Amino acid sequence: MPDRLVPHFQEELQQLKTRLLEMGGLAEDRVRSVVQALVDRNPAVVDRVLTGDGPINQLHIEIDSRCFKLLALHQPMAVDLRAIVSAVKINTDLERVGDLAINIAEAVKRYMRHAPVKELIDIPRMAEIAQRMLRDALDAYVRRDTELAHSVLNADDALDSLKTQVFRELLTFMLQTPTTIEPALDLILISRHLERIGDHATNIAEDVIFMVSARDVRHHAREL
Amino acid sequence: MPDRLVPHFQEELQQLKTRLLEMGGLAEDRVRSVVQALVDRNPAVVDRVLTGDGPINQLHIEIDSRCFKLLALHQPMAVDLRAIVSAVKINTDLERVGDLAINIAEAVKRYMRHAPVKELIDIPRMAEIAQRMLRDALDAYVRRDTELAHSVLNADDALDSLKTQVFRELLTFMLQTPTTIEPALDLILISRHLERIGDHATNIAEDVIFMVSARDVRHHAREL
Repeated sequence: MPDRLVPHFQEELQQLKTRLLEMGGLAEDRVRSVVQALVDRNPAVVDRVLTGDGPINQLHIEIDSRCFKLLALHQPMAVDLRAIVSAVKINTDLERVGDLAINIAEAVKRYMRHAPVKELIDIPRMAEIAQRMLRDALDAYVRRDTELAHSVLNADDALDSLKTQVFRELLTFMLQTPTTIEPALDLILISRHLERIGDHATNIAEDVIFMVSARDVRHHAREL
Repeated sequence: MPDRLVPHFQEELQQLKTRLLEMGGLAEDRVRSVVQALVDRNPAVVDRVLTGDGPINQLHIEIDSRCFKLLALHQPMAVDLRAIVSAVKINTDLERVGDLAINIAEAVKRYMRHAPVKELIDIPRMAEIAQRMLRDALDAYVRRDTELAHSVLNADDALDSLKTQVFRELLTFMLQTPTTIEPALDLILISRHLERIGDHATNIAEDVIFMVSARDVRHHAREL
């Protein structure tokens, strides 16, 4: 086959990374938009998030198909093989982050039917941390940077303790003022969705560490 | 290399399938145990689920490593390539189901500190549906049965409407009787975790359809 029909593996892999970063950017944008819409009580933006998953879904399919092509045509080994299988997994994680933006949007829509429960501080902070984790995890993938990947794993604790704090505070509201029960429930669900976005970033970071070092850190903490 | 050092691909693939079924069985058992423990208010079983994720985590790592070996040694093509990449994804989904059993166990533990909110009917039904979906999705993978995979996609609607029903009913309890707020919240979280187990089964079913037909059904419904 002439060379131009089978482009060089490293070039194709570079394109794959670029597409993954693009996908990560889309996922992050959706999370940022929907949480900003919650703070601003802006239903138009919420609707845009609810219906705007076309581009991310298209990229999801495209990236998967690039991965299969790379595996079939180039039959990569060692770190390159792990990089492509990781890309398949990361792609799935990013698509779920896009879906979680929809779950958040649904909760925001319900939330806006009620008076605000409280000034929102912790939830936007959770969103910022989750976005940062996503961005760092993807940077770590592209640069094969295990140190950055480890920093993502650590950031997950901050997210977790914010989630617990949000839960306790909202529970107090619910117990004291029954009219806050419905909207507070939606804020609790939103904080859980944000926690899950952090979980996806964590998964990506673990894949990066495995890809670079072939060392499986996934069940480490729990087994120690 | 002598033949006995590189076993036949189909034989290795068969072993991979057996391990995936085993992993599915473990995941399903954990879900069944923890929901039964909720119904029976049995803290010992809850604790067993909380600490019993060792075997599933070990299998997770083993299956992943089998997949990498198959990809590297045999460089499979077409449906075999898709079968192995699907196995990587399915393995991830099953591991998350195992984790969700822990999330449920944590909620059950909190729930048992309070008087029962109501007789539990819908949550055990959700668990049954989710377990059935998982089992069918894995059978569909092993038998490359797209019809069975499609039936899993359809079952997801039943799970979704049960989740909505549980939510509405518990919300009514919370609004009428503030002492039920805390335990009802945990039941709502449990129903969300069960819904996510159904989502994982759905992911597996979509992978099966893609593996067999190379047709991507994942973003179909939403784009129509």
